[in-house]
Amino acid sequence: MSCSSLDLAPLLGGGMNGSAAADYICNQLSDAGHAIDTTYLLFSTYLVFAMQLGFAMLCAGSVRAKNTMNIMLTNVLDAAAGGLFYYLFGFAFAFGKPSNGFIGTRFFALKGVPDPSFDYSNFLFQWSFAIAVAGITSGSIAERTQFAAYLIYSSFLTGFVYPIVSHWFWSADGWAAAGRNAGESLLFDSGVIDFAGSGVVHLVGGVGGLWGALIEGPRIGRFDHAGRSVALRGHSATLVVLGTFLLWFGWYGFNPGSFAVIFKTYGPSGSSHGQWSAVGRTAVTTTLAGCTAALTTLFGKRLQTGHWKVADVCNGLLGGFAAITAGCSVVEPWAAIICGFVSAWVLIGLNHLAAALQFDDPLEAAQLHGGCGAWGIIFTALFATERYVNEVYPGRAVRPYGLLMGGGGRLLAANLVEILVIAGWVSATMGPLFYAMHKLGLLRISADEEMAGMDLTRHGGFAYVYHDEEPKPATALALNGRRILLTKSNRTSPNPNAEPSSRLFIFLSSYGACSTAYTQVSLTHAPLA
Amino acid sequence: MSCSSLDLAPLLGGGMNGSAAADYICNQLSDAGHAIDTTYLLFSTYLVFAMQLGFAMLCAGSVRAKNTMNIMLTNVLDAAAGGLFYYLFGFAFAFGKPSNGFIGTRFFALKGVPDPSFDYSNFLFQWSFAIAVAGITSGSIAERTQFAAYLIYSSFLTGFVYPIVSHWFWSADGWAAAGRNAGESLLFDSGVIDFAGSGVVHLVGGVGGLWGALIEGPRIGRFDHAGRSVALRGHSATLVVLGTFLLWFGWYGFNPGSFAVIFKTYGPSGSSHGQWSAVGRTAVTTTLAGCTAALTTLFGKRLQTGHWKVADVCNGLLGGFAAITAGCSVVEPWAAIICGFVSAWVLIGLNHLAAALQFDDPLEAAQLHGGCGAWGIIFTALFATERYVNEVYPGRAVRPYGLLMGGGGRLLAANLVEILVIAGWVSATMGPLFYAMHKLGLLRISADEEMAGMDLTRHGGFAYVYHDEEPKPATALALNGRRILLTKSNRTSPNPNAEPSSRLFIFLSSYGACSTAYTQVSLTHAPLA
Amino acid sequence: MSCSSLDLAPLLGGGMNGSAAADYICNQLSDAGHAIDTTYLLFSTYLVFAMQLGFAMLCAGSVRAKNTMNIMLTNVLDAAAGGLFYYLFGFAFAFGKPSNGFIGTRFFALKGVPDPSFDYSNFLFQWSFAIAVAGITSGSIAERTQFAAYLIYSSFLTGFVYPIVSHWFWSADGWAAAGRNAGESLLFDSGVIDFAGSGVVHLVGGVGGLWGALIEGPRIGRFDHAGRSVALRGHSATLVVLGTFLLWFGWYGFNPGSFAVIFKTYGPSGSSHGQWSAVGRTAVTTTLAGCTAALTTLFGKRLQTGHWKVADVCNGLLGGFAAITAGCSVVEPWAAIICGFVSAWVLIGLNHLAAALQFDDPLEAAQLHGGCGAWGIIFTALFATERYVNEVYPGRAVRPYGLLMGGGGRLLAANLVEILVIAGWVSATMGPLFYAMHKLGLLRISADEEMAGMDLTRHGGFAYVYHDEEPKPATALALNGRRILLTKSNRTSPNPNAEPSSRLFIFLSSYGACSTAYTQVSLTHAPLA
Repeated sequence: MSCSSLDLAPLLGGGMNGSAAADYICNQLSDAGHAIDTTYLLFSTYLVFAMQLGFAMLCAGSVRAKNTMNIMLTNVLDAAAGGLFYYLFGFAFAFGKPSNGFIGTRFFALKGVPDPSFDYSNFLFQWSFAIAVAGITSGSIAERTQFAAYLIYSSFLTGFVYPIVSHWFWSADGWAAAGRNAGESLLFDSGVIDFAGSGVVHLVGGVGGLWGALIEGPRIGRFDHAGRSVALRGHSATLVVLGTFLLWFGWYGFNPGSFAVIFKTYGPSGSSHGQWSAVGRTAVTTTLAGCTAALTTLFGKRLQTGHWKVADVCNGLLGGFAAITAGCSVVEPWAAIICGFVSAWVLIGLNHLAAALQFDDPLEAAQLHGGCGAWGIIFTALFATERYVNEVYPGRAVRPYGLLMGGGGRLLAANLVEILVIAGWVSATMGPLFYAMHKLGLLRISADEEMAGMDLTRHGGFAYVYHDEEPKPATALALNGRRILLTKSNRTSPNPNAEPSSRLFIFLSSYGACSTAYTQVSLTHAPLA
Repeated sequence: MSCSSLDLAPLLGGGMNGSAAADYICNQLSDAGHAIDTTYLLFSTYLVFAMQLGFAMLCAGSVRAKNTMNIMLTNVLDAAAGGLFYYLFGFAFAFGKPSNGFIGTRFFALKGVPDPSFDYSNFLFQWSFAIAVAGITSGSIAERTQFAAYLIYSSFLTGFVYPIVSHWFWSADGWAAAGRNAGESLLFDSGVIDFAGSGVVHLVGGVGGLWGALIEGPRIGRFDHAGRSVALRGHSATLVVLGTFLLWFGWYGFNPGSFAVIFKTYGPSGSSHGQWSAVGRTAVTTTLAGCTAALTTLFGKRLQTGHWKVADVCNGLLGGFAAITAGCSVVEPWAAIICGFVSAWVLIGLNHLAAALQFDDPLEAAQLHGGCGAWGIIFTALFATERYVNEVYPGRAVRPYGLLMGGGGRLLAANLVEILVIAGWVSATMGPLFYAMHKLGLLRISADEEMAGMDLTRHGGFAYVYHDEEPKPATALALNGRRILLTKSNRTSPNPNAEPSSRLFIFLSSYGACSTAYTQVSLTHAPLA
Repeated sequence: MSCSSLDLAPLLGGGMNGSAAADYICNQLSDAGHAIDTTYLLFSTYLVFAMQLGFAMLCAGSVRAKNTMNIMLTNVLDAAAGGLFYYLFGFAFAFGKPSNGFIGTRFFALKGVPDPSFDYSNFLFQWSFAIAVAGITSGSIAERTQFAAYLIYSSFLTGFVYPIVSHWFWSADGWAAAGRNAGESLLFDSGVIDFAGSGVVHLVGGVGGLWGALIEGPRIGRFDHAGRSVALRGHSATLVVLGTFLLWFGWYGFNPGSFAVIFKTYGPSGSSHGQWSAVGRTAVTTTLAGCTAALTTLFGKRLQTGHWKVADVCNGLLGGFAAITAGCSVVEPWAAIICGFVSAWVLIGLNHLAAALQFDDPLEAAQLHGGCGAWGIIFTALFATERYVNEVYPGRAVRPYGLLMGGGGRLLAANLVEILVIAGWVSATMGPLFYAMHKLGLLRISADEEMAGMDLTRHGGFAYVYHDEEPKPATALALNGRRILLTKSNRTSPNPNAEPSSRLFIFLSSYGACSTAYTQVSLTHAPLA
């Protein structure tokens, strides 16, 4: 909003009346600006929140049926526990003012909010980002992690590790932020450009997951005795597609929403070009990067496997989104296509590497959010245009921009620092945490439990019950996570004239989708003679 | 929108020109206000509509597979029939002007809309609320109610019972509304503060469900011979989580959307504080109440059952939302945490009570929407702050506010009256309706039908067909809701050289998820010798 | 946005200052307008995008389990490939300026965008429409089409066939557009009124699907030897309802969003009536048409089949939406009820016709989008009101409107031309394409593959794995799309004292929902004696 009563007053005749009239008019427009921008920001927030549902469905579909409730519960709790922790201190660490370059020190429990620079809607938007981080990491350690361990690392990540990172790169006080307060020096005279968080969100979540998955080791059966990769297929492709589309939907809040305000002019007022146009362009670059990555993956995997793999296409798509997130607001649409194309190969390559190293990440989260996120940070430093960088990060006379666009290497230097710093910080915090839990026996579930599935052992049952009647078992024994029920029948022979010689009753109760299928085989002597 | 040409005109030099200029400018801002507010209200409406999808998925996941299509169809019809009935007369009863304190008498079939106070968008927003009420009640009577009974009560509730209640508490003419027309006296000088409908929506739906479930009695098998509670587990935890997240998503339309306008100043124009900020705060209180309730339920149920129960956490979360709905706009964020914490225990307690009384509500709707809704009404009267009450319900010199905030007991008195009046009105209308249908044999399905499931008997099949081929049965008999098919085969022996001595064919057709698995055991004499 | 500095300047005293002040103020309001309208358009776009998820879920639920991944992948690729093709040339063909009446010739790869008339947000909105068209057609040819054929027709339809149609009827340069540039003559002095695309989107997709399904022929087993229709039920009613509700949700972007701008006055500024009100009315007519069609279908099918059919109600609902799409902005709410009522019978009638003609369209897409779409175009020409037509399509002194509203037959003539032209154009382009692929053996999969399901043969597995352990088969043979695995065991007898006389191992592995249920029947001689 650019209405200035100082500018308008003289035009209205000056004097007390002119000044008051100008104030009156500009105040009205200021109100309109608050209403528009809050509408914009809140609905963007709701879209980002929908990503949590997307994660829940994607994760559920990507794990085996026996761990479905477990992973969905972690997604619900990311949002719920994240809500409390981010309210109590996460937001304060990230954006509290006053602050130093390392950490914020105000706004605990929203004390002091609203403030002219932070309204409630800003808090909620940032919360929706914070819970996404924990969701990413949870994918890497799925199907083998104790629930208590989940609660511990998730709180630590959402409430402390992530807020610090977002403070460094996004707060006006952050030591590495491109949007640092005027008058303060920028890292490499540039600051880091990571617009919506390829690094701050995705790399953080990915590195967290990397350490968790490394320390836990692969799921039982994920690699055979010869070390060959054995696919442990997720139980529902439908949920994978549902989750992927919901994440796509939510990314329109994530990336364009990161502008926070839409009623802002670039240059003189009255032009059709302004932040609204940049918002639209950001939605376009986001779309194109994801689309290109999906298509590249489709054909890439077809060549490798001979199949059109829907789950791989979904992951490729999401990798494209994770990559474009850093630069979405400062690159041209054509560049987004390059971003997505490379991103697909980054993910394919890292997945091969992971298989070779026997690294098991059920959601490919470390590869996808970590690897493609890191690529996105570099991409931004290569392709950011001068004009967009200066529009989106205004207030400096000269700004470095993309290396390949003629903007020199300083932005690249700053963005490489971001990758190193995030990798270091998250490794230094989450690595020891996971290791300590590992040593204390708090991290991984037992092999029996892993075979049986956590839904049965920890969450009170299985996620699906498609049949109603369950026979009351006489004897039950667990075999590889399926309960075999053996019973004896007192019923008389179906053929009352036949002499009963031998009967064998097999009740095979397979919990899960098909809760019960049982067969009674009754053998009588007479007819066999 | 606060632009006043009377205020602005003198500043612009007065006279005809000054007045015309002021008119011109304020008219422009008025247009902008209409555009912003309509955008805000319509997108909020769409979110609330998404709750209907949330209900459908939550309900589907919470019932047994054999009744999935039945309950989803009721959710589709809530929206569809609700659309017609609310258009024809529901909206007129609720908000028609002129009206008396009891019922509105204009706007039938939208005749007279748009009107300066009600545009089409207001109608649509209210419709999205009306259909939620019927959705709540449908959960209580799931899995045992005739479809025709459903159509009857749903129409009556959406078209008459609920609109009357919303008229009383939300219409400017309602006898108990806090936002009553200036100059008219308020109930206890306060009026009821039920901002987005913990009472008007959730308690109404919950009490309706209570009567329905009471009169129908529990589902077969829900309590054993000793009266002990037997869980009849829903068939898909995935759908429960999907539905819960969608309801959370939609609640951001429900609660913050209830402001209807966002472009409104509090106090002088040009401040950063206005209705937009209250909208954001409402989204925050909503979030915190739900998060707290979810976490409280998680640990509360863990202590009781030893398991981390995802469905219970989901219900706890929703109970927190139902509770905060009344006070979301007038309490501080910290108070929302108290709201959610207590709400979780209210739900846990009522569920224990329901089990003790052998009351069966498959969705816990009476306990959740009724119980937590009632708590939310009381909570509001305890924690509403003076400032927020006066901002959200302006136009009165002095207003009572929360008892614990020093605002006296009059708001509590008014809000307790709301609980009693809603309980009485809904009992007096829905109780006799359910009872009459019960006496006429229209309410509950037969025991056979209940065992078989309504999808098979009324809706043309089962919701899921994971296998394609179904053998044509020679003989079919129903056993506990599963059809057992016995057939004889005319096929020749697989081993043509063996003398066929005896053959036993077992076709076990388990409808539902695994539509058909059949085994043919063929015994021949020769090899046994 | 109607602020005119020419009008305002004299009121502000005229002269240089008055003019500058008026410019200043109007420019501010212009900025606000851009911010509001872009917010409105982008969030509408996101809703339309959500329809792609709706299509994916609806289609998945409507096909058999064995083709679930196949059809979902086509939906993902509609969006992804559509994104690239529409960016590269589709948008240019449709809306590029300069252009002739047939095709646009600028804006390839968004070169020249943003432009005062087209911002990035306009492109994205149009993209979300383009991908819907391919989604419609994919339903008609589901379960029997080669994946490569899918990629070919989808690209051709999204990138060429559809953009041309949208150019004709929606571009300001289109030869048949009602909103044609001022000064250019209109078709029948009216132009076609197809506001959001009953013809441009739904009829195009439906006719495309009609040709595809005709040329491919019905699925194996869809009609028996006597030519009677055999239902090949979709595998999940839950997904059908999920998809339907998501489409309903997204239609609020599709129809009201087609205004593109919401900050626009009708008549003098400062009134409560403006485009915002028309937007709300459009949401209301959309809702009422769908609701009426759903209810009509519910009772209509009940009378015919004796069942309350949820999938039919869903399709009826969607047919009502497809029908109201053309006229949603220019008819009264009561007329929308007529639209929906007739639409339901159109769909029921066409489905009977399709069965009689042994035409197989798994999603009823040709009947629903084609038939109801065509009805909607006619409906619009019957019921469009004078006032709304002139508000929504301004700038002409006199405009024909609905025949039954007294507006003469010229709009009907124009709209009938639309139906013929679309039917002809799509037949002339898509018909030969499908036929050529058919002749080249590229269109339909083999019978074996159709029986086995494409997920297994082309997409690397089945969509669902509810059980974890799968036995390694010794011998596998395919029987009617289910693999029967026969193995021999080397294990010793369970009873070591018994003399093993005969053992029969039956491993019955039914892929799909219940991935594996196997039974071992072991017969020993001794105990039988």
